[in-house]
Amino acid sequence: MSVNLLPPDHLLPVPGVRLGVAEAAIKRPGRNDLMVVELAPGTRVAGVFTRNAFAAAPVLLCRERLAAERPSVRALLFNSGNANAATGAGGLEDARVVTAALAAALGCAPEQVLPLSTGVIGARLPVARMRAALPQAVKSLAADRWLDAARAIMTTDTVPKGASRRVELADGSTATVTGIAKGVGMICPQMGTTLSCIATDARLTPAAVQAALKAAVADSFNSITVDGDTSTNDACLLCATARTGSADIGVGDADYARLAQVIADVCLQLAQAMVRDGEGATRFIGIDVSGARDRAEARQVGYSIAHSPLVKTALFAGDPNWGRIIMAIGKAGVEGLDPAGVDVALDDVPLIAGGQPHPAYREALGAAVVGKSEYTIHVRLGRGAAHATLWTCDLSYDYVKINAEYRT
Amino acid sequence: MSVNLLPPDHLLPVPGVRLGVAEAAIKRPGRNDLMVVELAPGTRVAGVFTRNAFAAAPVLLCRERLAAERPSVRALLFNSGNANAATGAGGLEDARVVTAALAAALGCAPEQVLPLSTGVIGARLPVARMRAALPQAVKSLAADRWLDAARAIMTTDTVPKGASRRVELADGSTATVTGIAKGVGMICPQMGTTLSCIATDARLTPAAVQAALKAAVADSFNSITVDGDTSTNDACLLCATARTGSADIGVGDADYARLAQVIADVCLQLAQAMVRDGEGATRFIGIDVSGARDRAEARQVGYSIAHSPLVKTALFAGDPNWGRIIMAIGKAGVEGLDPAGVDVALDDVPLIAGGQPHPAYREALGAAVVGKSEYTIHVRLGRGAAHATLWTCDLSYDYVKINAEYRT
Repeated sequence: MSVNLLPPDHLLPVPGVRLGVAEAAIKRPGRNDLMVVELAPGTRVAGVFTRNAFAAAPVLLCRERLAAERPSVRALLFNSGNANAATGAGGLEDARVVTAALAAALGCAPEQVLPLSTGVIGARLPVARMRAALPQAVKSLAADRWLDAARAIMTTDTVPKGASRRVELADGSTATVTGIAKGVGMICPQMGTTLSCIATDARLTPAAVQAALKAAVADSFNSITVDGDTSTNDACLLCATARTGSADIGVGDADYARLAQVIADVCLQLAQAMVRDGEGATRFIGIDVSGARDRAEARQVGYSIAHSPLVKTALFAGDPNWGRIIMAIGKAGVEGLDPAGVDVALDDVPLIAGGQPHPAYREALGAAVVGKSEYTIHVRLGRGAAHATLWTCDLSYDYVKINAEYRT
Repeated sequence: MSVNLLPPDHLLPVPGVRLGVAEAAIKRPGRNDLMVVELAPGTRVAGVFTRNAFAAAPVLLCRERLAAERPSVRALLFNSGNANAATGAGGLEDARVVTAALAAALGCAPEQVLPLSTGVIGARLPVARMRAALPQAVKSLAADRWLDAARAIMTTDTVPKGASRRVELADGSTATVTGIAKGVGMICPQMGTTLSCIATDARLTPAAVQAALKAAVADSFNSITVDGDTSTNDACLLCATARTGSADIGVGDADYARLAQVIADVCLQLAQAMVRDGEGATRFIGIDVSGARDRAEARQVGYSIAHSPLVKTALFAGDPNWGRIIMAIGKAGVEGLDPAGVDVALDDVPLIAGGQPHPAYREALGAAVVGKSEYTIHVRLGRGAAHATLWTCDLSYDYVKINAEYRT
């Protein structure tokens, strides 16, 4: 089940990027679960990663390799079915071995390959099966295989996730931005994100790649939550192959703002796709908090609503049980919050004014909004000018079913 | 459904306390939903209340009346079916009116009556129906009506909750402690607690009543969570009627420690009963975190585990999916947590040693523990000597069902 989400029908190839997939039967046979992204020489790569203290071995290795003085990444090796997390020194060695094997096949150095894993925590990678599947993945490398790649990294996802945009640059050339992502549970990335990969052929400088990624992630992957749980493996990479245009595009350049916006659009579409495909989701809900003293306060209130099991089950029921929204605002821990300053609306229906039911509110008005598959909860705190928007989904029987049955 | 929880079969009367119930049809007819606790003159009362910013009208009035220089409480007026929260000045006035009506019936001042409400948020109290039911409640006042009282304050509770203890004092006299409580959802009291009332005939000083309540609540109501949601109406009152013994018992006195322990025992039994009867609960889980730098850090990790929907659905499934426990420890936000120092055990089965699977761990060993209806998750952080224990339950289909259907 997913909320108004179709597979992407049009993922544009990005000059300088080829993708290949193979079946390594990592968790079980019958699907492609290994995926290789080959990057042209000179590609600039930036990454953001989970802040979970139990960061997985592939995350540790990505961080190490991207921290090199002049990282020169030539390939990404994704796998689903096994997270290679909580696997200690052995897991780190496994990640080194499989990336070295891909490096050998591609003719680059092991340090030029970044591993990204998703799946069950605490099991060692099936290194032999993955090595055996690498030749097939390399053989299948092609520029138009983005959708196959998006499918190969799915776990409990029901729909592959991808987005593409084109942007015209100042010199008349056109740059492409394409991204894919996976993740529908254990989703509350906060400072990192789940597995995703965005590529562009624009000639962004390494600093510009980093800056554009950081900005895009803040308002996309770091503004969604399915269940408030932060994965050990969240990783998002932005790869700029520098195949288009002639001059480097730095953070201060005119083209930067344009590209950063398109990269942000792609990230937002991918992040929202995760929520739309959230485990058991039947509704896609925006939570818009304004009138806060700062953005952190607005996000604190937004997440308190988005993570409340009572709010989420009321969303599922299509019940305008706004008492639960009030409860969640009140428990958010905002120091000195005055209920008399708080307004709440469902889309354009005012619910709460000054901490009490709005005089014009009628249950039928609220019920009409919450019966929809997509709507926004607006909260005004009346304390300042800061604002934040989050996206989340409801908590349904199927969330419990999926997570009570997964792995067993 | 509840986990190993029976109705209390033996709630001891407390000299100086009489209880009465009546049907006011507050939410719907067919049950007693109004409950009066009459306290003898000279009773010393202390209360702790929700920290939710949207504290309900009855909580505001309790705070106001207990803040008086020499509060002299003579009665408590409980109702279920309506929380009188998010009702603004009108709700506060309603609470004043119904408590004044009870005061008139009992022949005391309105300020000597404390209101406690639980139920739907955002609806005004049916004041006329409540006033009409008061005479019946007063007429039914009796010392042995604790179980009726416990039933009258239930909302989605499936089992009434109460506990009693006797304690011998230094002078050879015996004191009684009896408490009742309600609450199975919107449970994560944190600093307040849900609706509960504990009475003793011991001659505790007002300061000792306050101190004993605060200590008891910290390790009982403030150490449980069903869903991480903090009610607008949490309130816990301790009433010492001073009917037994001859000398006041202050915080430094020998009898204080003994009484405080028994009061803490009663609170713990009531708090655990809430979790055992947690909405949809099928398992009762202790979470014991040790080796923390301070108690707050231990509680932070404990709540991160207890609130994780992925952990809670795995508990429901009886799946020893310890990767989710690791994830929850890692996302708790403990600065500089070193996975290599973390050990986890299920009861006495070591799962994780130094952040990786314990060499002796086998799935069958873990499965045997998590198949039980009660067990403890032990976490050692390896950072210090502080420790905390929490209690929680699983997240089942029935939690979703109860909360998607409640109110509609």
